[in-house]
Amino acid sequence: MVDRAAYIAVDWGTTNRRAYAMASDGAVIASAQDDRGVLALGPEDYPAEIAALRARFGAGPVIAAGMVGSSRGWCEAPYVDAPATLERLADACRDVAPGVRIVPGVALRDGRRPDVMRGEEIQVLGAIRAGGAPPTALFCQPGTHNKWVETVDGAITTFTTVMTGEFFALLRSHGIMAGLLDGVVSDGAPFRRGLRRGIASSNLAATLFEVRAGLLLDRLPRSEAAAYASGVLIGADVATRDDLGRRPVHLLGGGRLSALYAVAVTEMGGTPVIVPEGSITAGIHAIWSLSA
Amino acid sequence: MVDRAAYIAVDWGTTNRRAYAMASDGAVIASAQDDRGVLALGPEDYPAEIAALRARFGAGPVIAAGMVGSSRGWCEAPYVDAPATLERLADACRDVAPGVRIVPGVALRDGRRPDVMRGEEIQVLGAIRAGGAPPTALFCQPGTHNKWVETVDGAITTFTTVMTGEFFALLRSHGIMAGLLDGVVSDGAPFRRGLRRGIASSNLAATLFEVRAGLLLDRLPRSEAAAYASGVLIGADVATRDDLGRRPVHLLGGGRLSALYAVAVTEMGGTPVIVPEGSITAGIHAIWSLSA
Repeated sequence: MVDRAAYIAVDWGTTNRRAYAMASDGAVIASAQDDRGVLALGPEDYPAEIAALRARFGAGPVIAAGMVGSSRGWCEAPYVDAPATLERLADACRDVAPGVRIVPGVALRDGRRPDVMRGEEIQVLGAIRAGGAPPTALFCQPGTHNKWVETVDGAITTFTTVMTGEFFALLRSHGIMAGLLDGVVSDGAPFRRGLRRGIASSNLAATLFEVRAGLLLDRLPRSEAAAYASGVLIGADVATRDDLGRRPVHLLGGGRLSALYAVAVTEMGGTPVIVPEGSITAGIHAIWSLSA
Repeated sequence: MVDRAAYIAVDWGTTNRRAYAMASDGAVIASAQDDRGVLALGPEDYPAEIAALRARFGAGPVIAAGMVGSSRGWCEAPYVDAPATLERLADACRDVAPGVRIVPGVALRDGRRPDVMRGEEIQVLGAIRAGGAPPTALFCQPGTHNKWVETVDGAITTFTTVMTGEFFALLRSHGIMAGLLDGVVSDGAPFRRGLRRGIASSNLAATLFEVRAGLLLDRLPRSEAAAYASGVLIGADVATRDDLGRRPVHLLGGGRLSALYAVAVTEMGGTPVIVPEGSITAGIHAIWSLSA
């Protein structure tokens, strides 16, 4: 049991959940991470989960963002259309239980192509609110589904989801290269060779087969295959943007994957900026302040 | 037991096997298809499989092509480097047991990018031998791994493997869209919309996420998702060739998938030519004649 918590913030994702006991000034008093993501839960499980969080962090309000608000989560919080600000997200929060609000995601609904996000919007707008990035900026959020997000004056105006991480996971576990991509993925010569190949590629589905052919023909050592394949995928991802040389790329999420994207952005002539941690709680705190 | 068979031809693939009792003039006397592909067999199983084929089709020589000659098959038959002709393949066949020969595959070993094939070479060169395509031609072999193959004067000079079918299978069974792509894939408005989107796409890993976003935002009916996604993948595949408008594309394999590629080639301004069946046995018969 934590004292002083004004409310509980939850980043409730597909596979992971991170909960924060928050002070009224936005400071994080305590936090916990576990694998109680939406895939591990049925809709009937959420009230007990909320009770457990309150038992641990205090009986105050709960604000949750992420896949918890999707059709596979607790209760659907309909998407806000871009351009999306923290104010519009706060207005569109859904009350799902006494003192429990779910933050909606953001959609590109009517444009040339459809796209959606849930959870990333809090991190992007929280980064701006916390001063980690300017109000008009380009963001990159590496992960299973990398998001390239553009903001103008503190509003998410457009974004693109790229299934880079999912492709790597599928190939590593289920495809013809299953078992061949279990090596370490880190920056180094194999990753950078893959990166250059991915940037030059005009057909990802062809270039990835070169990993298998390279292994069979002894042109690619098995120990380098995973890093090379990751380089190809990340290279193809960054190469589809033609604006990386014109403005800084604000990388969210930290960790090993963001470091690899930083290398890739640099290879494209861009300037990566690693945003400090704390964007998610800054974003949820803004929602709490606006909702209060 | 079949009389008159001069030898047995086997197209021995990853998941399927097709065996033919062959007359000395190359006519097919009888054939059988089953699921005894290399993934279903260990190296120790092959002698009994050969005995069973001989019990059924006659005690003559056996010539087998395809993944049976890979490291996952019976016995590795090292790749022939491109340019590869039927004569060079015949010279490089590997005798693995009394009266049993395995046809090698073809490799691009030293060029800008590595690539390999096993089994497709027999079908391409057999098509030329049977008169189904000219000696200098462009071929397309749709499947799990689509091959674009160029020949000059009856020799395979270069080729590109595209993992189009594997990507579709992975997404349908294992990814975030698992369960959403089980609908019928056939030519029609959804396939053609996907095709045009795939042709215009510069990033397959982003464009495929539009399938999920389109479903979530009610822009894509669930019943159309599989055909649309297949269109995106095949569109991206054909769009990476810049020569489709300049010469006929000889489609091998027949069936539903070749028909979809024919639509895609036409959309790119090209002229698809469906090659009649019989290319594989024509190719193996040429190997048999050259080996005799």
